[in-house]
Order: sequence, then C-alpha cells, then structure tokens
Amino acid sequence: MEDKHLLIVGAGLVGSLLGLRLLQRGYKVSLLELRPDLRSSSQSAGRSINLALSHRGLRGLELVGLRDKAMELSVKMRERMIHSSAGQLMGLAYSAREGEYINSISRKALNCMLMDAIDQLDPKALQFESKLLDWNPQQQSVQWADQNGIVHKLDNVILLGTDGANSQCRKLLMEQSQKLRFNYSQSYQNYGYKELTLPPGPGGEFLIKKEALHIWPRGHFMMIALPNPDASFTCTLFFPYRGEDSFEILDQPDLRKEFFDRHFSDMADYFEIFNEEYEKNPIGHLYTVKCSPWSYEDKMLLMGDAAHAIIPFYGQGMNCGFEDVVIFDEMLNQNKNWLSCFQSFEKARKINSDAIADLAEDNFLEMRDRVADLDFQKKRTLEIKLEKEFSDYFSKYSLVTFRPDVSYHDAMQLGRKQDEYLLQVVNNEKDIDSINPLILIEQLRALR
Amino acid sequence: MEDKHLLIVGAGLVGSLLGLRLLQRGYKVSLLELRPDLRSSSQSAGRSINLALSHRGLRGLELVGLRDKAMELSVKMRERMIHSSAGQLMGLAYSAREGEYINSISRKALNCMLMDAIDQLDPKALQFESKLLDWNPQQQSVQWADQNGIVHKLDNVILLGTDGANSQCRKLLMEQSQKLRFNYSQSYQNYGYKELTLPPGPGGEFLIKKEALHIWPRGHFMMIALPNPDASFTCTLFFPYRGEDSFEILDQPDLRKEFFDRHFSDMADYFEIFNEEYEKNPIGHLYTVKCSPWSYEDKMLLMGDAAHAIIPFYGQGMNCGFEDVVIFDEMLNQNKNWLSCFQSFEKARKINSDAIADLAEDNFLEMRDRVADLDFQKKRTLEIKLEKEFSDYFSKYSLVTFRPDVSYHDAMQLGRKQDEYLLQVVNNEKDIDSINPLILIEQLRALR
Repeated sequence: MEDKHLLIVGAGLVGSLLGLRLLQRGYKVSLLELRPDLRSSSQSAGRSINLALSHRGLRGLELVGLRDKAMELSVKMRERMIHSSAGQLMGLAYSAREGEYINSISRKALNCMLMDAIDQLDPKALQFESKLLDWNPQQQSVQWADQNGIVHKLDNVILLGTDGANSQCRKLLMEQSQKLRFNYSQSYQNYGYKELTLPPGPGGEFLIKKEALHIWPRGHFMMIALPNPDASFTCTLFFPYRGEDSFEILDQPDLRKEFFDRHFSDMADYFEIFNEEYEKNPIGHLYTVKCSPWSYEDKMLLMGDAAHAIIPFYGQGMNCGFEDVVIFDEMLNQNKNWLSCFQSFEKARKINSDAIADLAEDNFLEMRDRVADLDFQKKRTLEIKLEKEFSDYFSKYSLVTFRPDVSYHDAMQLGRKQDEYLLQVVNNEKDIDSINPLILIEQLRALR
Repeated sequence: MEDKHLLIVGAGLVGSLLGLRLLQRGYKVSLLELRPDLRSSSQSAGRSINLALSHRGLRGLELVGLRDKAMELSVKMRERMIHSSAGQLMGLAYSAREGEYINSISRKALNCMLMDAIDQLDPKALQFESKLLDWNPQQQSVQWADQNGIVHKLDNVILLGTDGANSQCRKLLMEQSQKLRFNYSQSYQNYGYKELTLPPGPGGEFLIKKEALHIWPRGHFMMIALPNPDASFTCTLFFPYRGEDSFEILDQPDLRKEFFDRHFSDMADYFEIFNEEYEKNPIGHLYTVKCSPWSYEDKMLLMGDAAHAIIPFYGQGMNCGFEDVVIFDEMLNQNKNWLSCFQSFEKARKINSDAIADLAEDNFLEMRDRVADLDFQKKRTLEIKLEKEFSDYFSKYSLVTFRPDVSYHDAMQLGRKQDEYLLQVVNNEKDIDSINPLILIEQLRALR
C-alpha cells in the first residue's frame, strides 16, 4: 500500500477510532476537528448525550485494545422496561444469555477516551478548531486552517471523511455528482426529539430501575430513558412535529403539565425538572442519509454517518460506524492499493449500512407502538425462552445487536423471516406455554 | 396577492413560459439566464436537441397564446416505428383518434419563440449571462451580476427557481436542510446517452419515415430517432456505461462498425456519419431528482426540473414543466397570498411529479425491451382497436400523453390496472381477433 498522509476530517467517535487504529498500524495520521477539544471544555460531544454500545461497537474497541476501558464507563442495560400510561412496569429482557446486554455510555466520555489514546501515540495528530478549506483531488492536495487561523497546505494526502451526518466531505463528492454519478438521498422523519435529564435521587440513587432501557411507548409518540453512571437518566422524547400529541402541543406551556401527567403518570413527580429543561433544550431532527459512491478514486473515502446516517431506533449508529473501522482494517490487510481498498470497503459495507438504515426505521414503529402490543410481548417471551433453551437461536434484535459475525443484511433477512413466522404462531396459539419448543425451533432453523 | 418583484432564475423552457405568463398577468418580472441569448448564438439550448411536445405541454402554450405557433415548428409523430435487428419495420400507432399524436420540436426553436414573446411585453425582462450571487431570505433580497459583471441588489423579491435539474436555487434550499427538513434524492441510471444526427437525404428528403418516433429496441440498450423539420433526424443512443453492449465497448473504434452493422443493420449505410459524431459528442447522464419542500416560506419556489427532474422515457419532462406553469397560474387565481399559493402548488403537483418520475423509469424498460415483445405488440394492437371503437377508452400512454384533464397520478394508477388486465387477456387468448371488444371494454371500465 502506497504510503500516504491520511487526513481524517472529523474527530467524533468514528473518526477518533479510525485515527487511533491507523496510528497503531503505523500510518501518518492527522485529524481535523471543527470543535474545541472536548476534554477541556464543557460542551457536549454532539447530537445526543448517550448511546447504546453493543457487540459490533465493542469489536471496534477491541481492535484498538479499549474494550474493557469502555465497559468500565458504561451502565449495563439488560432489558427494555416498558412503562404503561397507568404507570405499570414490565421488563422484557434483551436476551436470556450471559453477556448479551447493551451498554449505556456517554458520547463524550467515549470520545475523550479515544482521543487520550490518540495523544499517547502522536500528540500532534489531533487538530482542534481546525477547518478543511480546500481540496484539490487532481493534485491530491488540501488546505486547512488551524485554531490560530494559520493555513496549512498538504500534498499527497488521502482524505477520510468521518465528519458525520452533515458531512462537508460528502458535499465535496456531491459537487462532483455528474462525474461520479453520485446517488444521494436525505429523508427526514416527521418526528423530532428532545433530551431531558432525570437527576439522581436525593441519596444519589437511581430513581428508576438502573440496568434497563426504559420506554414509555404511546403509539404515535414515545419517551425513552438511558441510565448514566452518576445515577441520572437521559430521557428522550420522540414526538411528531405537528398534530395531536406533538411538539406543537407540548410547546404550549399551559398544556404541558396535563399532558405529562396523563401520558407519563409515573414520572409526574419530576415534571418541574423536565419542564425547565424542555424550555431550554432544542428539538433535534431525525433523518436518514444514503449515498454512493463513498469514495473519489483513491483520494477520498467517507465512513460512518458521513456515508450512512441512520435514525437511532436500533441503537446502532455508533456501532455501525465502529464496525466500519473493523471492516476497513480488514480491507487494509486484504488489498494492495488504496483504490481497491476503498472499493472493496464500499462493496462490503453499503449493503449492510442500507440494511441497518431500514431496520432502524422499522424499529421506530416497534418501539413506540408494538412493544405495548400483547402479541408482540408474547412473541418476545417466546423468543427469550427459545434463546434460553437453544444456543443457536437468535432473535432479529439479538442478531443485529449481539452477533457481529452475522452481517446487518443477513440479520435483517433472517430476522424478518423469524418475526413473520413467530407472529403467525403467536396469533394461532392463544396459550404460548402449550407450544412445543423442540418442534418450533426446528421450524425456525428451517428458515436459515 | 402582495405585489412583489418576481425574479425567475433560469430562462430555459419552463422559466421562459412562466416569465411570459407572469408578464401577461401584469407582474414585474425579471429572468436571469446564465447562458448567452440563444437567438444570437450558435449554441444549443441544453441537454437534448429535440423534444416530444404533447397535450400537457400544449396546454401551457395555449395559456400564453402560442400553441399554434409551436405546432408550426413541429413534426407530428403518429406512431412508434420499431426497427428489428434484421431491419424489419413495424408501426405501432400512438392512438387511433384524430389529434392524438406527439410532436417533435427543437428545444432551441421553442425556447426562442418564448423569449421573443417575452421581449414583446418587456424587452428588459430577460437578462442573459447573468448570475445569482446571493440570496438573503430574511431580508428577501438578492444580488446578481449582469453580463458586464455589474452587481445589482434587489429587495422585496420572490425567487422562482426554474434553473433545471442541476438547480442552484435548489442548492440554496438544501443549505437550509435542517430548518426545512428538506427531503432530497438524486439517483442516476446505469445508462447514459449520446446524440447523433441522421442528415436529410441527397434530395432533402427524410431518409426514414417522417411522421414517426423510431425505436431500435435491443433489450438492454436502444436507439431512438426523432424527425426534425429540415428532414434530418436526431438519433439518441441509450446504453449502459459498462458491460456487454455498453459505451465501454462502443468507445473502442475498432469494435464500433461491427456493432452497428449487427444491431442497427438498416442504418448501416450511415455508419460513417454516425461514427464521426460519436467521436465528437459527449455522453449525457440520466438521473431523477425528487425533493420536498419546493418552497421557502413565501420567498422562493422551485418549478420544473429544479423541483422534479425526470428521465426522458415518457417524453414528459418539458410537458410536466409546462403543466407546472398551468397549475401555478390556477393557484394564482385561487390563493390570496404567496405562501398559500406556493404550498397549494406543491400539494397539487408533488404527487403528480412523483408519478411521472416513476412512469418514466418504467417506460425505459418498456421502450428498450417490451416493445419488441409479441405480447406487448398484441396488447398495443388491442388497445388501438379499443381506442378506435370506444371514445372513452384511453391506454396508459394515452392517459399520460393526451389527457391533461387526468392527473399523472391518476393516469398511472388507472393505466397500470389496465395494463395488468390486458396483459392477462392477451396471455390467455392466443388469437386477439376472437376477443369480444364489447365485453372487454366493460371489464376495463370496471377498473376505473
């Protein structure tokens, strides 16, 4: 592989993991980050406060030797805890097996950990408050401005664009639309989100169950809450922008209390805290970005959200981005030049990033609506039972979340077949206890 | 309606028709056009040389009183003339009814005609070699540079973006993606096109049948030819970029003659002429653009290809754009302010521009492949018979092409149902002469 200076644009989670790995492999790496250094500022790390780290993401952290350290920063979430309108609780385990849980982790803490590791290998690699000014693909040169506004010129450089959903690098590819026959789509949900914080209790305790991802599913809207190590929870409201039960309604202060009391009755005591943050925090948008090609000759490659931004409802955005780094690392092993490396990376990943994008859109409906449905709950109960009894059975959720050896695309295909089959079974059989698991598992195995 | 200066960006076909109509309605209108005045230059008018003008487009020309004048510039095309590989010909009429034909017209001649009409109403409206420099939606002001590079500032202006598939105005909306929750997609076909000219015969005669749209359907590629008033034909090759029978192959000069002889045997005499142009002319790309919203408050609206670029296989790109002007004109009658005018325009048009985009993609397959298919030809024969006998029967093609009173969306829905039904009939009945048209028409009417 020809020796090039690798310029990573965007030192968020994916850019930082990628930079670290490339430094470990011995490349000359620089990372440009628009924002100030997270580690010495009080700013947040981007669009959402915490994330659900699962097996695909852990594989990325394993690759750079930081898996255990990341786990120390996390709070395990072993189940979905469903809160009904009346305040009743029901836990639905993510899996019956040891080690199959997801991990709530702060975006900022994780990013800082990766940056610290980069600094240890090359303290000059990370350039904060720095901006890509110009890219000349013919001459393979870039100009960028550092935090003092000093302009640097780099030649013989490869751009790796990990600059997120609103990627500047992707816009550079878009300017070459005709030449690249660049396919592109951005599509917004009719839903936005707002983050609120449920603080620790007076004695520093978790106010709702710690090791769970909490969901208040309400059909056309929902709230979720993820635990933080300091015993607080980050709650996120997902609401339509307009119509009945929407941000349009919640934005009217006099309607808000009644609304919270009615729909989130078990949280009624914390309304004042929520209300204060509601006023302060902005509404975030949810959108999916797909594009192709991800590269420009052997001169630029997009990775992570820059190439494939997804909505957060499978908890896979970061996990998918980290898996990009794992696959890219494999491609570096398998290819002899950058061009074939970039092309085989996209060939391997595009089908899978498309699959997780579609799965995430499906799962939004599942989370806000179907988890409250009796058939869905029976199906989950049955699946947990199957997962407990048969080590080779994995639900769609488990395939996506706990089986990095199965691609997103294969997980989607098998998972959908299983779901369809099990919903039929649950529908035909009122009493799921009367189902013979030995027969059922054979039928499910036949779907593979 | 508040009186505003209307600044039309792009004086192509749609921009010119729109500008003319708005001048006729008494608005203050300026049109900025990047290119020099077509009427005093030898340049072409854009991406393709001639177009198929049909009833929806004619409605737009009728609105400004130029229908008859446009018809004088056109050559009627009454049928599809299918050329087999062996050189056999078969004509498939577009319709059995009087007045239902399509019209081959030069893009440049049509555009010049519209510009002349604009000049008659306001000789200062058209500004050539002029560029939009800056748009400030808050202040509703723009800056633009005229052909001498002099910068003008305009306040209290409404932008109407008719600047085509690669619209600069649409890019301005895209910069407001988050605020507008701007949905956008551009998707390229794996096919490109190249235009060639078949000149008039030695005595100035048409070398192939005049009043026809000629097609050489070859499955995964095709050539078409449209007549021009000077007795030449504009031929267009539609080929995959890569693979067997692709531009990649045709780009090799030593393979080209054998290829033409084999696939376009009845054109073999003209190979040298084609070959010369093949070397000179660029390969054009085919892509579909969809987006939403088309407007920014009451300050900007996209129309025509800028809002909805489609591939050319239904011959509806310009017709759809002209229909935009007709519907916009209706919206000006029906609405009291610009905001509701823009919103109701999109509400009326988006569903229909999406439909014609999808129909055009379907029709590409039909033109290059199915027209050569026996069942398809039987179905067309049957439909022509039905159209001749029953004044209320219209095929999908006729609904789209000759019935501007039926929306594209409704034409698509009914047309697809009819197609499905007739293909079944043709499939079950070997001899179509034995089909009772009185029974069949009743079955088809039931689909409405």
